Amino acid sequence: MIAQSHEVRVRTRGNDHIQDVTQQLAAIVEGSGIATGQLTVMVIGSTAALTTLEFEPGLVNHDVTALLERLAPRDGVYEHERTWNDDNGHSHLRASLIGPSLALPIVDGRLPLGTWQQVVLVDCDTRARDRRLAVTVLGV
Amino acid sequence: MIAQSHEVRVRTRGNDHIQDVTQQLAAIVEGSGIATGQLTVMVIGSTAALTTLEFEPGLVNHDVTALLERLAPRDGVYEHERTWNDDNGHSHLRASLIGPSLALPIVDGRLPLGTWQQVVLVDCDTRARDRRLAVTVLGV
Amino acid sequence: MIAQSHEVRVRTRGNDHIQDVTQQLAAIVEGSGIATGQLTVMVIGSTAALTTLEFEPGLVNHDVTALLERLAPRDGVYEHERTWNDDNGHSHLRASLIGPSLALPIVDGRLPLGTWQQVVLVDCDTRARDRRLAVTVLGV
Repeated sequence: MIAQSHEVRVRTRGNDHIQDVTQQLAAIVEGSGIATGQLTVMVIGSTAALTTLEFEPGLVNHDVTALLERLAPRDGVYEHERTWNDDNGHSHLRASLIGPSLALPIVDGRLPLGTWQQVVLVDCDTRARDRRLAVTVLGV
Repeated sequence: MIAQSHEVRVRTRGNDHIQDVTQQLAAIVEGSGIATGQLTVMVIGSTAALTTLEFEPGLVNHDVTALLERLAPRDGVYEHERTWNDDNGHSHLRASLIGPSLALPIVDGRLPLGTWQQVVLVDCDTRARDRRLAVTVLGV
Repeated sequence: MIAQSHEVRVRTRGNDHIQDVTQQLAAIVEGSGIATGQLTVMVIGSTAALTTLEFEPGLVNHDVTALLERLAPRDGVYEHERTWNDDNGHSHLRASLIGPSLALPIVDGRLPLGTWQQVVLVDCDTRARDRRLAVTVLGV
């Protein structure tokens, strides 16, 4: 069996900046030599999240942010902000709702994503961040 | 170690059609001979999602759709639709929020789901689709 | 390869009671002897969910509940409740939206969570529950 860990680093602008990390994950899978198995990826930190999305400008630059703004408005009242005197209560809620990690199958030596389906990091924090994604691959 | 990949195909009606795929996944686990391990399932495409749900008509035919309609209304204004001249901006948002994949433990040769907990595919697209779920199982 | 299954039991008060299960999962990883691999955790049942969150009182006791109340209000009208004559339609919707399981990488013998990132169980049901989390770890 093959078991490997990797790290992917992503510089974000925060404020729901969405970045496509599919190529970095695909390179890890290809380099591992695993034909059949599974990849796990988690963003380290509690104000960013991972999901899949069609990576096109309308969704990436407008629609996802508008959705998250409806769900947890930036100018809402949050006890988190009162307690810690910071400004990112909405960031925590948005990230926890989307979720911090993904498990993806490895089939025939690749991630079987759709053509218009990319793995994306959504950084919900209110400032630029250097994000680290912890990745492990397991399989044969 | 056992490592296998499988595909599950599901015909949906779109428009938040929810289908129970628990039996298909349970059959894969049973057929694998894995006693202790893990199953990963991902829907291929960016307008459908996977979660667990009590598969009963009230939730399946009414309440989940009503929730998703509140979160990302079908008749909302989406840049995705302006750019691509299609009608499924809300489908992308709903699917990305729920998430495309699940990792499930295999314990004593089965998925330890609750009695009223089913693995479901939620197809958020606006038309009937033939969906493919990529599945891998790993374990001993 | 090492493959193990474990169970974590958590007593909750329901009503979006959020509990930090990071230490229980970390102990499983440490006890397994796995250096590189992956942990899968799933809550058994359809009215509770797992995610990561900064475990501090503002988010835990106020902000997450307020978010979930906006998304799926407790006093909303749900077909689930009309059918089954119970009171937890909102609980099912909240839990399915957050999701029932997490896959987490094991790197250098530990879960590489952020300092302010805890794995939490969110119990959305309307009464106290004894929850069981099914956990498997795989790796080398």
